[in-house]
Amino acid sequence: MATIKNVLLYVNRIKCEATSLESDITTYLNGIGIENSVIYADKQEHSEIKNFDLVITLGGDGTVLQALRRIHAYQIPILGINLGTVGFITEIAKGEWREALDKYIDGTLRVSNRTLLDIKVVRKNREIFNTIGVNDGIVTSNNIKAIIELKVYFSDIEIGEIHGDGVIISTPTGSTAYSLAAGGPIINPEMNALIFTPICPYSLSNRPIVTGGNEIIKVKINKNQRANILLTIDGQESIDLEEEDLVYFREHGRYARVIMSDKRSFFDVVRTKLKWSGGPRA
Amino acid sequence: MATIKNVLLYVNRIKCEATSLESDITTYLNGIGIENSVIYADKQEHSEIKNFDLVITLGGDGTVLQALRRIHAYQIPILGINLGTVGFITEIAKGEWREALDKYIDGTLRVSNRTLLDIKVVRKNREIFNTIGVNDGIVTSNNIKAIIELKVYFSDIEIGEIHGDGVIISTPTGSTAYSLAAGGPIINPEMNALIFTPICPYSLSNRPIVTGGNEIIKVKINKNQRANILLTIDGQESIDLEEEDLVYFREHGRYARVIMSDKRSFFDVVRTKLKWSGGPRA
Amino acid sequence: MATIKNVLLYVNRIKCEATSLESDITTYLNGIGIENSVIYADKQEHSEIKNFDLVITLGGDGTVLQALRRIHAYQIPILGINLGTVGFITEIAKGEWREALDKYIDGTLRVSNRTLLDIKVVRKNREIFNTIGVNDGIVTSNNIKAIIELKVYFSDIEIGEIHGDGVIISTPTGSTAYSLAAGGPIINPEMNALIFTPICPYSLSNRPIVTGGNEIIKVKINKNQRANILLTIDGQESIDLEEEDLVYFREHGRYARVIMSDKRSFFDVVRTKLKWSGGPRA
Amino acid sequence: MATIKNVLLYVNRIKCEATSLESDITTYLNGIGIENSVIYADKQEHSEIKNFDLVITLGGDGTVLQALRRIHAYQIPILGINLGTVGFITEIAKGEWREALDKYIDGTLRVSNRTLLDIKVVRKNREIFNTIGVNDGIVTSNNIKAIIELKVYFSDIEIGEIHGDGVIISTPTGSTAYSLAAGGPIINPEMNALIFTPICPYSLSNRPIVTGGNEIIKVKINKNQRANILLTIDGQESIDLEEEDLVYFREHGRYARVIMSDKRSFFDVVRTKLKWSGGPRA
Repeated sequence: MATIKNVLLYVNRIKCEATSLESDITTYLNGIGIENSVIYADKQEHSEIKNFDLVITLGGDGTVLQALRRIHAYQIPILGINLGTVGFITEIAKGEWREALDKYIDGTLRVSNRTLLDIKVVRKNREIFNTIGVNDGIVTSNNIKAIIELKVYFSDIEIGEIHGDGVIISTPTGSTAYSLAAGGPIINPEMNALIFTPICPYSLSNRPIVTGGNEIIKVKINKNQRANILLTIDGQESIDLEEEDLVYFREHGRYARVIMSDKRSFFDVVRTKLKWSGGPRA
Repeated sequence: MATIKNVLLYVNRIKCEATSLESDITTYLNGIGIENSVIYADKQEHSEIKNFDLVITLGGDGTVLQALRRIHAYQIPILGINLGTVGFITEIAKGEWREALDKYIDGTLRVSNRTLLDIKVVRKNREIFNTIGVNDGIVTSNNIKAIIELKVYFSDIEIGEIHGDGVIISTPTGSTAYSLAAGGPIINPEMNALIFTPICPYSLSNRPIVTGGNEIIKVKINKNQRANILLTIDGQESIDLEEEDLVYFREHGRYARVIMSDKRSFFDVVRTKLKWSGGPRA
Repeated sequence: MATIKNVLLYVNRIKCEATSLESDITTYLNGIGIENSVIYADKQEHSEIKNFDLVITLGGDGTVLQALRRIHAYQIPILGINLGTVGFITEIAKGEWREALDKYIDGTLRVSNRTLLDIKVVRKNREIFNTIGVNDGIVTSNNIKAIIELKVYFSDIEIGEIHGDGVIISTPTGSTAYSLAAGGPIINPEMNALIFTPICPYSLSNRPIVTGGNEIIKVKINKNQRANILLTIDGQESIDLEEEDLVYFREHGRYARVIMSDKRSFFDVVRTKLKWSGGPRA
Repeated sequence: MATIKNVLLYVNRIKCEATSLESDITTYLNGIGIENSVIYADKQEHSEIKNFDLVITLGGDGTVLQALRRIHAYQIPILGINLGTVGFITEIAKGEWREALDKYIDGTLRVSNRTLLDIKVVRKNREIFNTIGVNDGIVTSNNIKAIIELKVYFSDIEIGEIHGDGVIISTPTGSTAYSLAAGGPIINPEMNALIFTPICPYSLSNRPIVTGGNEIIKVKINKNQRANILLTIDGQESIDLEEEDLVYFREHGRYARVIMSDKRSFFDVVRTKLKWSGGPRA
């Protein structure tokens, strides 16, 4: 049983019904004597979120990503209520919020620890950037038409030179996001793993690679690029890269803590939302 | 430093140079006072191998698979010496045997724990078969032309019905074997994971799935098949399946223990042997 | 306007409603003064079908394949009435038979010319086998577990050596059959083309190849196979191959003539039956 | 035997040896009494090239694309001499120029007719843009991170809504360019066909589609995009698209005329340059 004294609502007001739901939940929390505050996702603040026992997001997967990026160091559990169709991270449908909240307070919902990415950029031997990723870090050009050239290393072993649109390094949580679109495998989000997926490489001899543990995936930006190169994290944060920059990706020591629905599992979502199918009638 | 009193040589005599190498290694072991015996891979014995401190295989990946299947319960470390081109499991080239053996005795070679598959067949509520897999378990027809129909469950969630040539459930070690040919991702063999890869499914909406931990992948043989169905493990052991049989795949509690070369890593082998490449010049 | 004096019904009696539909159509044809006969698909005859102005099949895609293989030399148009879900070749649903038949007699339904395969086997410099394929010719082992080794040539240029489950050479009509399951592209069935799709090759550096015109695709069976090798055509005819046999695939000089529905196009079927989709909501 | 009175050299001066080779060829042509002129690829002119019997390009595939785009209406044969590694269109290596030129004059080299794309943009019922494509037309965002949403039609049948990085419509000549990187099949460049390849679609249920003949592929830009959308042709010309624009792709009535080497075929280049391979040893 989780002792919940102080709840933060993280609300994406663009979504329909977000504010009426916010009011319902606030009223409910007040009624059972739980302190609560609200942050709106559209406010462009990036300060860390701390001193709460629980964060409830109202929005879609993007809203959860945003909230998780701000709370990760404090490892506050997050309950993602989906205002649209059920998402990959926000497994709780909007009609289920009260039941899910009650169950979480009663200690009957499981909290899933999700691998986070630790991402660093080193320029001329100095670390100039360090962030976490919930879904993925992507190295691409600013312009889809330009081929970029990168070298990729797994713990200092060069796996090859990429000529193409770029590369994705994804967590299992991100395996159903851009990595999937680029041809990557589906990975159970509760695993500890990193997925390396090239984006449209000019090569036949290619396949996504899954690794993990203490492996460090290093991406080196070659000289003589024809385009500006960008590192984008979770589709929400980006930094311009320069030639000869090194980008290091590894599993973060901390986890995101996502409260799971007891109504559907990841594999239900794979089947119903991704429409995974093994045959014409399935 | 490993105390090695008793070594088993597991020799595939079909490979060139196997017997001359066997004699060299035996002479060397006698010279340094280590007891040793020899088993030939072509002898059709399947008894377990025990009471050795080290098994050295002379052959290819198939020879290691065979030996690992017989020693797994005793978790004896295995040193795979490759008589052909460097393999995925047998990372030690034949010219390197003495150096590798000396280093292993000195305790300077790392032993890699490899996930094994625990595979069970249940027929009419009775377990009729239980084995381990080092690379993979494959459910197919006896005849490649016949479409088979299977239901696949991840911890009791039905992911879908497969119509196609069959399914592969692979360990990370097996990710570079048949799973790769069927389109599966490359997985660092030191991870704990299972890979589910359909074989030629009659569906567009399809992708390999990686999972692990306590997940049980269950394959149910549908009724009214047009072909006889077979479960094959590591390409070395097989059992005919019947309609309505259930096959359970999960991570085994024990690991295979493979002695690693210090000369090349898995990612070197991916690049040089699989010719992984991200671009036309790479 | 097509002059129809003599119709053959080609009936797969295993399908539900086949015989009642047969009787309805026969009655209708008698009523409008068109001679008609019936052949049952389950009769194991392979004689050519000739002296008809129209063949109507009652069954699924398999029934049409069977009928087309028997009538191809006479190029009789075929009207495929689907007794199950709409197929790729049998675009006419069972409730639409009378409208389709009337329209065809009135000359308002289009006849599509479909590329056929001409397949030859040469053993020790002698042609020992020659047949046509409507969907595809497949070279595999008799046993899915055995890797086979083949050399493949495009007009005498060796494209490479295949190690894997085998190869498919498909017509555009067959592009939605086994070639699709093996990863091949979808091809408009009205094109003149051949598709070469390897089946589970042990190689990353691989991609289906589309060619056509006068190209001859030659498959050579290597020596020292571990399995018996089989050539299967349309899943309906097969011949055992021997080591060093050569199999030649090319576009046949004649076409199959398939009467098209005016209610749905190939691309409707791709969307509704194959569930082709470009996004999560589509 | 081709009567050659007037030759244009189309020279990419950035490539090493381009100017010395230009001088060698000019001297040779003067010596055999053939008039000749030179255009440099880096001059930003886009006027049509006409009144020549032959165009010789010195550069890579990009140089040929550029020249072909300027000469297509006059259908002048093009001899592409490759200054780097052998390309897909420039099959003639630099050491082979004299032999190839002599043979072409003697009429012993074959000219290959290559399908061109006719690309039109219609905005508010008015055609605002019309161009040809040698390789491909690509609809993407200006920014790789933004998902775009498009509807795609084959001859007015909606195949589906694309959510992803965009779409490629390619000629067979372009099948080994960006379409290949996005997962498209390899197509013999002498075929008449169009290849539709989605770029990183957010969908599992997806496959490249090959069509041709009179098929019109229509791409509609949805409303409410999050990014600016761009149509790029051959990586050399682009136009900003607006919401609700329609882009029409079809086979052009004219062909590009490419002089073929007699030393290597397309399939040689697939094997040696793309490293197509069917097995680990191949």
